[in-house]
Amino acid sequence: MALIVQKYGGTSMGSIDRIKNVAKRVKRWHENGHQIVVVVSAMSGETNRLIDLARQISSQPDPREYDQMVSTGEQVSISLLAMAIKDLGIGARSFTGGQVAIKTDTSFNKARIQSIDDQKIRAQLDAGNVVIVAGFQGVDEEGNITTLGRGGSDTTGVALAAALGADECQIYTDVDGVYTTDPRVTPKAKKLSKITFEEMLEMASLGSKVLQIRSVEFAGKYQVPLRVLSSFDESNDGSFDEHFKQNVGTLITIDEGDNMEQAIISGIAFNRDEAKVVVRGVPDHPGIASAILSPIGNANIEVDMIVQNISTNGTTDFSFTVNRPDLDKALAVLNNEVKDEINAKEVIGNDNVVKISLVGVGMRSHAGVASLMFQTLAENNINIQMISTSEIKVSVLIQEQHLEKAVKFLHTAFGLDRQDGASKVAGV
Amino acid sequence: MALIVQKYGGTSMGSIDRIKNVAKRVKRWHENGHQIVVVVSAMSGETNRLIDLARQISSQPDPREYDQMVSTGEQVSISLLAMAIKDLGIGARSFTGGQVAIKTDTSFNKARIQSIDDQKIRAQLDAGNVVIVAGFQGVDEEGNITTLGRGGSDTTGVALAAALGADECQIYTDVDGVYTTDPRVTPKAKKLSKITFEEMLEMASLGSKVLQIRSVEFAGKYQVPLRVLSSFDESNDGSFDEHFKQNVGTLITIDEGDNMEQAIISGIAFNRDEAKVVVRGVPDHPGIASAILSPIGNANIEVDMIVQNISTNGTTDFSFTVNRPDLDKALAVLNNEVKDEINAKEVIGNDNVVKISLVGVGMRSHAGVASLMFQTLAENNINIQMISTSEIKVSVLIQEQHLEKAVKFLHTAFGLDRQDGASKVAGV
Repeated sequence: MALIVQKYGGTSMGSIDRIKNVAKRVKRWHENGHQIVVVVSAMSGETNRLIDLARQISSQPDPREYDQMVSTGEQVSISLLAMAIKDLGIGARSFTGGQVAIKTDTSFNKARIQSIDDQKIRAQLDAGNVVIVAGFQGVDEEGNITTLGRGGSDTTGVALAAALGADECQIYTDVDGVYTTDPRVTPKAKKLSKITFEEMLEMASLGSKVLQIRSVEFAGKYQVPLRVLSSFDESNDGSFDEHFKQNVGTLITIDEGDNMEQAIISGIAFNRDEAKVVVRGVPDHPGIASAILSPIGNANIEVDMIVQNISTNGTTDFSFTVNRPDLDKALAVLNNEVKDEINAKEVIGNDNVVKISLVGVGMRSHAGVASLMFQTLAENNINIQMISTSEIKVSVLIQEQHLEKAVKFLHTAFGLDRQDGASKVAGV
Repeated sequence: MALIVQKYGGTSMGSIDRIKNVAKRVKRWHENGHQIVVVVSAMSGETNRLIDLARQISSQPDPREYDQMVSTGEQVSISLLAMAIKDLGIGARSFTGGQVAIKTDTSFNKARIQSIDDQKIRAQLDAGNVVIVAGFQGVDEEGNITTLGRGGSDTTGVALAAALGADECQIYTDVDGVYTTDPRVTPKAKKLSKITFEEMLEMASLGSKVLQIRSVEFAGKYQVPLRVLSSFDESNDGSFDEHFKQNVGTLITIDEGDNMEQAIISGIAFNRDEAKVVVRGVPDHPGIASAILSPIGNANIEVDMIVQNISTNGTTDFSFTVNRPDLDKALAVLNNEVKDEINAKEVIGNDNVVKISLVGVGMRSHAGVASLMFQTLAENNINIQMISTSEIKVSVLIQEQHLEKAVKFLHTAFGLDRQDGASKVAGV
């Protein structure tokens, strides 16, 4: 018998029929003898409907009242799912965040979970009932309803799994797992059966939006095994056996480091939402980076990659990337507040760029990943504009028009095309 | 400074604009220095939308989950109203039934309020805030959400007014008060400025559906002054002065008995939803009433008026009325289970009847109301089929086709046409 936390998102709960399907799946797991805690989001569209009501009332809705209102979306779905499960002859009970004492701080709209009282849930599980908990919400010390911010239902699932010491937290979604890269870019993309928390964090932040990044951090911190899997896959029959563990969805877990054949690269992420800013002919002296980036930060513009060239003749070029919608604002800040101040020659913007990243914990113990990457791109006449590296990631900025070609060649070069998804790379 | 509880129903909260109008009215009261507690229903249509979702999931939704779900309708409206009031620069805070500890029993779907903790509300009022409370809901001892049954928001308003010792509980609705009779029947119907709880109970149960009957009982029990008034009347400027107290809406209050010119009749109620059953030629011996009515009660048919004629030649006729949709069922029960058993001659049904009732506490001290009623009907050739009286009510059953004529003649005969609404009747 296992204790499983299952989280179903808005799409999985998007209609009466889909809710009934979720109930049937929960029944199968329950019938296999497992204790099941289900976390659900609001039915798709419902949260937007509520937000729209609030915006019609006020251009800046009071944050406390906003949470009080928007939390009702999940309250409706937990009740509907409980009704559906009971209709199948299984004991079930729904709880709001407040009812199972998911205690948070008082940061309305973006609260953080502080503690969960697992007593009520355990009592229900021990009585043979399925427990259904509203995602995305909690209560503060005074009993005010708080929400964890958009997509926070994943976090609720992981937090409950951690509090209950669950065997696994299953995130049901509309994809069947995490892929080596976006299958829309190359049909050779393969589902990964396993990935580490760290890799998932790099993949997620780089644009593979399968999971809320906060929930992955949380799962990593508390070492909660996290599985991404499809809510439409009927082969998932509720038996938590070896076949299931090795084949269904993608398991996100700690780096066990015991695999001789460990993959060097797990996946290739990319982000089209990038724009490059170059400040040319900057006098090369201390304080320049700060003089350029402080005004950018003050204007609430997030900076991603940062590169400073080697100085020639006492001047240098300073480049960085921002989210594409922020490019014009960034250029205005630099031209108005920075350029003359630091005596720069010119400020150039370019929104015709994308970032491609190789991600893999295997990099730690294998040299040569970056050089194979650069070599592959060079052989295919793709120019690299910026480079940035971390312990388990190499990112390059290239012209947008080369994106698909680059991903395909890298996918092949790093051996990701093979049937088993991630694999050792020949020649590295 | 007064403490006022205001209750707004689904129609008053039916759109963004209407919610903003409620906020403006609350602001006016607040600006006049009064402490305001607002109780609201779900936006019109919302409760039905939720019930419809539940019915699609299950033909018999689990009662606990049903309450958990349907209570969200009010949760949304309290938040929206709080946002709207805050947008007008007034402190406001919304609370669910659970958050202000409206404790009920565990009868899901039709819970009864057991206690209210007024501390949280008083603290907010003392801090100068408007307090908004979700109607229709509470929590039981275990923290399960319960609902008071349909229309229960009136009861929430009265219960809060009682717990807080409010100066008045104002029920805002889409009519501007209680009338001497239905204005659609006679344009001479007048708004009453005052009516007693007992009269209101008789009026309500007889078909003048302005207020939930339970809330009137509750208000009477705790002597909470209850005012019915229009949420669309812009002359209500938030000043709780003598003009307001005597002219706006209808005040439902205790019988002060100190009014020399007290009205004998306050109003004329009627009910089209009646059908008559006559059991003819019944042997007149003890136990007959029970032999006829027990099987009717066992079939869950409610009986209203009951009349037994004087016996002639050892047999009598036994008549009673039921709700019109129950007539066929009642006839079947009598024909199959009763008629032969008690040796009755025949069983006749008639769904072509209506009940008209005169209501007024003045009847207690004035004889002759019934005879003026009968005389008025006789003069206009309207035949009376049944009569039933109570301390403050006389009801007659007549043919449906005479309804409007009868109400008009009685309205005039009892002096209700005069400008001040209720009045002393000449000649009684």
